[in-house]
Amino acid sequence: MASDIEIARAATLKPMPEVAARLGIPDEALEPYGKTKAKISASFIATLKDRPRGKLVLVTAINPTPAGEGKTTTTVGLGDGLARIGKKAAICLREPSLGPCFGMKGGAAGGGHAQVVPMEDINLHFTGDFHAITAAHNLLCALLDNHLYWGNALQIDTRRIALRRALDMNDRALRNLVVGLGGPANGVPREAGFDITVASEVMAILCLARDLNDLTERLGRIVVGTRRDRSPVTARDLGADGAMTVLLKEAFQPNLVQTLEHTPALVHGGPFANIAHGCNSLIATDTALRLADYVVTEAGFGADLGAEKFFDIKCRKGGLAPSAAVLVATVRALKMNGGIAKADLGAENVAAVTAGCVNLGRHIENLKSFGVPVVVALNHFTSDTAAEIAAVQAFCAGLGVEAILSTHWAEGSKGTEALARKVVELVDGGSARFAPLYEDALPLADKIETIARRIYRAGSVVFDKAAREQLERWQEAGYGHLPVCMAKTQYSFSADPSLLGAPEGHELPVREVRLSAGAGFVVAICGDIMTMPGLPKQPAALSIGLNAEGQIEGLF
Amino acid sequence: MASDIEIARAATLKPMPEVAARLGIPDEALEPYGKTKAKISASFIATLKDRPRGKLVLVTAINPTPAGEGKTTTTVGLGDGLARIGKKAAICLREPSLGPCFGMKGGAAGGGHAQVVPMEDINLHFTGDFHAITAAHNLLCALLDNHLYWGNALQIDTRRIALRRALDMNDRALRNLVVGLGGPANGVPREAGFDITVASEVMAILCLARDLNDLTERLGRIVVGTRRDRSPVTARDLGADGAMTVLLKEAFQPNLVQTLEHTPALVHGGPFANIAHGCNSLIATDTALRLADYVVTEAGFGADLGAEKFFDIKCRKGGLAPSAAVLVATVRALKMNGGIAKADLGAENVAAVTAGCVNLGRHIENLKSFGVPVVVALNHFTSDTAAEIAAVQAFCAGLGVEAILSTHWAEGSKGTEALARKVVELVDGGSARFAPLYEDALPLADKIETIARRIYRAGSVVFDKAAREQLERWQEAGYGHLPVCMAKTQYSFSADPSLLGAPEGHELPVREVRLSAGAGFVVAICGDIMTMPGLPKQPAALSIGLNAEGQIEGLF
Repeated sequence: MASDIEIARAATLKPMPEVAARLGIPDEALEPYGKTKAKISASFIATLKDRPRGKLVLVTAINPTPAGEGKTTTTVGLGDGLARIGKKAAICLREPSLGPCFGMKGGAAGGGHAQVVPMEDINLHFTGDFHAITAAHNLLCALLDNHLYWGNALQIDTRRIALRRALDMNDRALRNLVVGLGGPANGVPREAGFDITVASEVMAILCLARDLNDLTERLGRIVVGTRRDRSPVTARDLGADGAMTVLLKEAFQPNLVQTLEHTPALVHGGPFANIAHGCNSLIATDTALRLADYVVTEAGFGADLGAEKFFDIKCRKGGLAPSAAVLVATVRALKMNGGIAKADLGAENVAAVTAGCVNLGRHIENLKSFGVPVVVALNHFTSDTAAEIAAVQAFCAGLGVEAILSTHWAEGSKGTEALARKVVELVDGGSARFAPLYEDALPLADKIETIARRIYRAGSVVFDKAAREQLERWQEAGYGHLPVCMAKTQYSFSADPSLLGAPEGHELPVREVRLSAGAGFVVAICGDIMTMPGLPKQPAALSIGLNAEGQIEGLF
Repeated sequence: MASDIEIARAATLKPMPEVAARLGIPDEALEPYGKTKAKISASFIATLKDRPRGKLVLVTAINPTPAGEGKTTTTVGLGDGLARIGKKAAICLREPSLGPCFGMKGGAAGGGHAQVVPMEDINLHFTGDFHAITAAHNLLCALLDNHLYWGNALQIDTRRIALRRALDMNDRALRNLVVGLGGPANGVPREAGFDITVASEVMAILCLARDLNDLTERLGRIVVGTRRDRSPVTARDLGADGAMTVLLKEAFQPNLVQTLEHTPALVHGGPFANIAHGCNSLIATDTALRLADYVVTEAGFGADLGAEKFFDIKCRKGGLAPSAAVLVATVRALKMNGGIAKADLGAENVAAVTAGCVNLGRHIENLKSFGVPVVVALNHFTSDTAAEIAAVQAFCAGLGVEAILSTHWAEGSKGTEALARKVVELVDGGSARFAPLYEDALPLADKIETIARRIYRAGSVVFDKAAREQLERWQEAGYGHLPVCMAKTQYSFSADPSLLGAPEGHELPVREVRLSAGAGFVVAICGDIMTMPGLPKQPAALSIGLNAEGQIEGLF
């Protein structure tokens, strides 16, 4: 069995103009980055704004388990499947983060015969977007500390600076630090820290901005900290928004690559799915919708987090109306939700599969509550038995939903033809009546309650006192219209990662709230959220290198 | 009078394949980055290794003054001039650093009608090389702190860690910090700091490596710190060299752009000229020499630092033999060396020009001592008078050197035709007998003494006790064969920036020494050297932004 990297390297890629032509993108609208990556020019995108949008399909998943679900792989496979049945299709994915590549082995560009390529480039520097985001973010930080150094005319309370620095690296030693040491010539000492770049608010902003003007506006609204009277100080107050935009000008243009089957894929942006909304950029999705009839995209984590944020944050802000949702599940992951340990997944266990289906059922119900028709993609593993597959299909049928076995990992688009046909049927059926879960006008705390009760099925929400007070302050300060972005474990509907299946009546603790005023949401942190990962004892980096042929070894 | 940016924006650039064709680079050897930047592929470069090298011309300068000398502008102008007189010419320049763009207004891609373009891209992210260097550098740092976190099996003395982190940003608050705070889950607290990326040893290594294997070897030799017994711990000991190479694979390929007159320019690498050697990459220079008959390159700061390091570090390591040196001077800068304040430069003052010529004369003498014939390029300013120009020319004639007035800033290659003809005469005359200043075998302290006495004309060298002892330890540890890299003020032959002209008999203090074992030199620090700049009270960033046409404002 060939590995992902072997399959990717064996592929013959089409020249970018040929890939672009599938979406009617002319040569002159491509800014090449090497021979197999390109950016779609802002000037071309500006010409698209009056075109009608195609149909949007969200790929989401059950709660992730260590068994693996294959959400990105299914997104790629479905895109290829739609192309196979003659549809003008495009795929929208997030860009992978560089840092984690050196921790655990493995990429994030799909797998098997459902990958986007050039896979190594996409996983490493790609077109430099994340580096540009890091630079823009850290320029803001440098301007902030420079402002303190030169006398702090804005009277920023150095104890209440919310802004942390960013680096696309897993580096736990940078989580908490004291900067500005070394005496008066070297700044003002204060507590600070670094987050990984995907956790930067600049990343979330890049992914939600409509155009460069909106990008500048949003960057300007970033709250870097407060004064003693708790009034906010913004990036615009520091004069940073213009220069940050200049650094992001190229990064804001969506990247175009291809799948192994040459389906156009826009891989652009990649905000964290916990403290941010976990979707690729709005500009990429919107561009794809103006160019293709069917656009397949994905959202981070399981549907409780990813789909909810996709609907309530990205679709709300971007005026998007998804036509269908594909819910990815695997027999293995359902078994784990049914109480089986990873080591015991090899043996057939229909009862465990059926028990685990409660997780699947809950997600189906939730997705439908947004007014979006659902199909289940059962991502096939060779260890799945016919009886196990049948159990899933029977369970779904009971909910009026089809579960379609998909073998794209092994077979590419041949394995998603049935899924693609079903998606087209749902989309073209026009049954979608998309509506977000809550209105803008609902108070912030009530938005959190609504998500907790309706999506997570929590029995109660317990706010830490400081979090409750902070929400009230923001409500008064005019941030009450913002949607909320839930930061919760992805492994359970609850805040307890060990509660698999479909728990209900649990208590959701809201320990902390953060304001992403530029991105345009309030983050509710329910549990411990890591914004700067560490490296394991034996990081993948130790075995990464170039071989005698100059090929990368050990990364995937 | 049009500004640099206005001239650059008004230029019509040739497609990259056309620029490349001037050097016989085929289309398939180009990795495009947008439409007006490209990397020259490693596989093509590998095919060049048995070709004869063309002739190498160094552009250097008198000691810089606030009046400006125009070394990069002259390098570009001379390259264009050589092309104008029908020579197959290429230019090799350093890449500008991103961070300083947001401090002081102004770019580093030449000026007037002697610029490399696309000027804005070159000054900002360009092809992402510096971001890749930052990432490779910080991966090493993350692996180091991760090693400490997981038990420090190598027994690194956390008080004697030499490695600092890197960021391409002017951010003084990051100069000195304490990392690893926040308890046992967040690392091992220790003192640390950030340097700007151009000060990273990884940058110097990228600029001195012959090929990817050599790059890996050199990265592996970086000494990150020592054990309690003072034995060195290297990047290879940490297992970082392979992964760092993977991150630098694309960055190691030279960038190709063009001048306003479409002369090919390889703009690649940009190490600091103080704690590093201040030259563009060896791989770019070598590639250019295999492709062009005349290659014009520059070195940082004045000839006392830049040319000496170019000869003793870059040429020594790369087996390069320069055929001629162009020494750039301006009437204004000579006047300042003659004791005139910047405010008084407008008035004619032949006596001051003549007095300042001692600086020029000393550099001429030094350059000749390396066995390289010299021509002076007198970079014309509109305020220069005929008498002042004549004074410089008479002074140079007395030393048997021609001083040629060059008007490339205002006129492009038309203004360097005479200079180009003189350079060709010197090069083709074959009078060069290049030899570095000292032998590898000379002990480290004696190398420093040799440079100090023969180039700086110091009367004595005073080593701090710790520096002297450190040199002895490195001498014993097998680093004695390395060349030395002097970190001294660029404003004077001495260590005192206020001693202009041609001081002699002064005392050179060597306060600190640092080992760049990967780059392959020992740094001797003579005075205060800043490796992380700060921002001014009104940083340029505050007025940078996009205008209504989407053009960058306020950067240049």
